[in-house]
Amino acid sequence: MNRLLKFVGGVVCVAALMPAVAGADDKEIIEYRQHIMNALNEHSASLGMIMSFAVPDDNTVAHFEAIALLSKTALEAFEPKVKGGESKPEVWTQWPDFSKRMKEFAQNSDMVAKLGATQGKEAAVNHVLDALPCKACHDIYRAEPKQ
Amino acid sequence: MNRLLKFVGGVVCVAALMPAVAGADDKEIIEYRQHIMNALNEHSASLGMIMSFAVPDDNTVAHFEAIALLSKTALEAFEPKVKGGESKPEVWTQWPDFSKRMKEFAQNSDMVAKLGATQGKEAAVNHVLDALPCKACHDIYRAEPKQ
Repeated sequence: MNRLLKFVGGVVCVAALMPAVAGADDKEIIEYRQHIMNALNEHSASLGMIMSFAVPDDNTVAHFEAIALLSKTALEAFEPKVKGGESKPEVWTQWPDFSKRMKEFAQNSDMVAKLGATQGKEAAVNHVLDALPCKACHDIYRAEPKQ
Repeated sequence: MNRLLKFVGGVVCVAALMPAVAGADDKEIIEYRQHIMNALNEHSASLGMIMSFAVPDDNTVAHFEAIALLSKTALEAFEPKVKGGESKPEVWTQWPDFSKRMKEFAQNSDMVAKLGATQGKEAAVNHVLDALPCKACHDIYRAEPKQ
């Protein structure tokens, strides 16, 4: 608890840092998985800027490595099977397909990050669709984000 | 270019994927650094939820590792010294202090991620303030985010 107070007192990077209220478990589970997917979105957008030559490509491999780390946590974040957020009902009614896609995403993004680390950013970029199959999955499983 | 078209056609994870228009360099530089800082924010929020016991702590080390990766890219993203976004003018007028803090952030978050990987998540969490000195820096250098 002391650890937590130190963190809250000293860091408080976000206003939503302390959502822990009684009975709010489902809300928190949804919020946590949204943090994971939002972080993936930021890296995807960063890679998009790099690949459209809008910014230098120095951080290409770092973005792929961060995506690989996040993808491992993504399926787990959905496993409590709490409906809501931007998840369509199909996430839960077609769970075997959804979880298979998420596992493949984790495996493939790990492979692409390793390609980047060992063979350089060009090699990773050539497999960007393996590391980021976002659209194929979002078309089926994500509702339009609320404005 | 073929690579880019493939990416845009197949992935398009975000609507803002193609901001490359003539003369928009400064805007893009700001947008890119915001993706970096937003991703840091998502991980910080995730750790906040873990440390307040709102969600399980399985991904603790992954979040610290992603923060370490991002922190290395953060200073670089500010180096073009383009004013705007949520950066206060002090970022540029006090650049030696700002860049020193950002370098320390990168070094310390790397140290904490390694602690987590070698000694476990408890060890990393005990050094969370070293990995995430957000508030100290934001108080001086970040303007209030626009609503």
